[in-house]
Amino acid sequence: MSESKRVMTEKPLNAETPTPRLRSWITANDVFFDRNQGQIPDQKMPLDQWELRIDGEVKKPQRLTFEQLCDFPKAIVANTLECSGNGRSLLAKKSSGNPWTIGGVGNAIWGGVGLGTLLAETGLTERAAHVSFEGMDTPLGKANITFVRSIPIDKAMASTLLAYEMNGEPLPLKHGYPLRALALGWTGANCVKWLKRITVLDKPYEGFFMDKVYRVFEKGQDPASGEIVTGIKLKSIITQPLPGEQRQAGRVVVLGAAYGGEAHVEKVEVSPDNGVTWHAAEFLGPDEPFAWRHWQFVWQATRTGSHTLLSRATDSWGRRQPESAEWNLLGYGNNGIREHGVTIDIL
Amino acid sequence: MSESKRVMTEKPLNAETPTPRLRSWITANDVFFDRNQGQIPDQKMPLDQWELRIDGEVKKPQRLTFEQLCDFPKAIVANTLECSGNGRSLLAKKSSGNPWTIGGVGNAIWGGVGLGTLLAETGLTERAAHVSFEGMDTPLGKANITFVRSIPIDKAMASTLLAYEMNGEPLPLKHGYPLRALALGWTGANCVKWLKRITVLDKPYEGFFMDKVYRVFEKGQDPASGEIVTGIKLKSIITQPLPGEQRQAGRVVVLGAAYGGEAHVEKVEVSPDNGVTWHAAEFLGPDEPFAWRHWQFVWQATRTGSHTLLSRATDSWGRRQPESAEWNLLGYGNNGIREHGVTIDIL
Repeated sequence: MSESKRVMTEKPLNAETPTPRLRSWITANDVFFDRNQGQIPDQKMPLDQWELRIDGEVKKPQRLTFEQLCDFPKAIVANTLECSGNGRSLLAKKSSGNPWTIGGVGNAIWGGVGLGTLLAETGLTERAAHVSFEGMDTPLGKANITFVRSIPIDKAMASTLLAYEMNGEPLPLKHGYPLRALALGWTGANCVKWLKRITVLDKPYEGFFMDKVYRVFEKGQDPASGEIVTGIKLKSIITQPLPGEQRQAGRVVVLGAAYGGEAHVEKVEVSPDNGVTWHAAEFLGPDEPFAWRHWQFVWQATRTGSHTLLSRATDSWGRRQPESAEWNLLGYGNNGIREHGVTIDIL
Repeated sequence: MSESKRVMTEKPLNAETPTPRLRSWITANDVFFDRNQGQIPDQKMPLDQWELRIDGEVKKPQRLTFEQLCDFPKAIVANTLECSGNGRSLLAKKSSGNPWTIGGVGNAIWGGVGLGTLLAETGLTERAAHVSFEGMDTPLGKANITFVRSIPIDKAMASTLLAYEMNGEPLPLKHGYPLRALALGWTGANCVKWLKRITVLDKPYEGFFMDKVYRVFEKGQDPASGEIVTGIKLKSIITQPLPGEQRQAGRVVVLGAAYGGEAHVEKVEVSPDNGVTWHAAEFLGPDEPFAWRHWQFVWQATRTGSHTLLSRATDSWGRRQPESAEWNLLGYGNNGIREHGVTIDIL
């Protein structure tokens, strides 16, 4: 498998991280997945031309320069980001959208300002209920719809970061330079890039990207009646060996990651025999809130032939990964154990 | 201050990370400090030409290919690396060597194989006492002395990584591609790059880089009688504001890092008035063994004029940073509170 990203669409840019690059706890900026609805700005906006507008249900509307933003207390957070549609192509029944395998996910250390810190100074009116984010990317398609999303005020106040730094570098252009919202532990759809405006609303933002997509619904159902995609579902993936790989009998090191958004991954088990027996995996590397946990299982493969490896995670909220994901029309939140199995050959 | 590295010598390459880039918990690979005694290989050795030789006091000497190495169980570790001479130029009394300020330090997530895992399979003889590392860099200078260092067998077995991955990328050429030793929590001198040979010895390796340098000694004293530089000393640094910076009265966010090698940083205090009053700093971001902790202190600066900011750390071993470092001829281990103070102007 190539070590460069797999591009699914060029315009807008949608590309997933190659599996070998998911074996490290940090996902390097250059291979971090791309998920866009609009056209990425073609160059970095000079910081002296940029400002962040905060308006709506706030007591003191603001226009902040980048320098003013950096003068706020800093927050540094490890956060695993996943595309709502990650794993979609692995569903047993086809759904529409980009054919993500497992690479619509990555983990980074983000630096920035807590949105709660900012809004505490701005002040909120009694009507404040949702916070919408608008970016500088330009809409694609005839309908010309700007990508605007909103999140509940509680989430905004408690655990949402405005990030200007990613893995020790200024936020790269592709990932939202100079500023992106990060609703920690929530899917990428809630994390608007190239942020230019934050509006506090008295209800959820109404528009295509809130009402028609990023909702869990069945065929024939009104999208708006479906649940909004928010927190990342509990899931585990196998990143080594690769599907179809051939290995010699003997020691096979099985590597993977598990993540549950706002919840803490407590346990990962691995089955080397398609679910007949299960064995505890060992955790590797850092253990931080909002971040995935990497794990390995050292498997002694004795029988030659085809083997299906499965992994399953349990989290601090008492959730366990389902055997198979609940299907929905847009294929969001595929976290099924079966869908993420890997079949290999032992020689 | 520029955001690119400050080069102190070109040959060998010695360069420190600019202070603004020390404000993130992860130090990006491209600004991670360079410290060399020899000439860096000018290109990446093709992996099929590389092998790791393990010999000496082992029961089964080995020659491992890169592929074989990657088939061992994986380890992923956050580790802050510091040059033994970091801070040297800030000492009150001049000492010899590269004039590091505070940028001879950085933090990364490393992936690789535990040396203990490897040696457990190789087996050790009863005489095994030290482990020496030899790299592929070529000596500079007339004496033509290869950079070989050894560490005690206990450290090698318990907490030494052979790293092939740095911040989610294959180990960069400058940082030791394809493999470097990392004695976790110990100074860079113990972490040989471009590793090609590991020899288990019945006593410490004898040679220039063990006996003449990386030892703490006074003028007129025999270097070999001085203590070897091993674990990183407890220290804190201020990374914002910069020395000499001017700030408006009002809120000033003071940022910094603190690290203690194998010990856990428990507390950081900040003095905004040159040591008269001390205030607890708030920790930021990940808290991992062997890794620095970032902190901030939100200072309300009311008095205009010159202010000296100090920081001091306390660790899990009961150590506290000294007021001033103990001086030694080669200026190793400068962790003094006074030497790391930052004086700024409030307007």
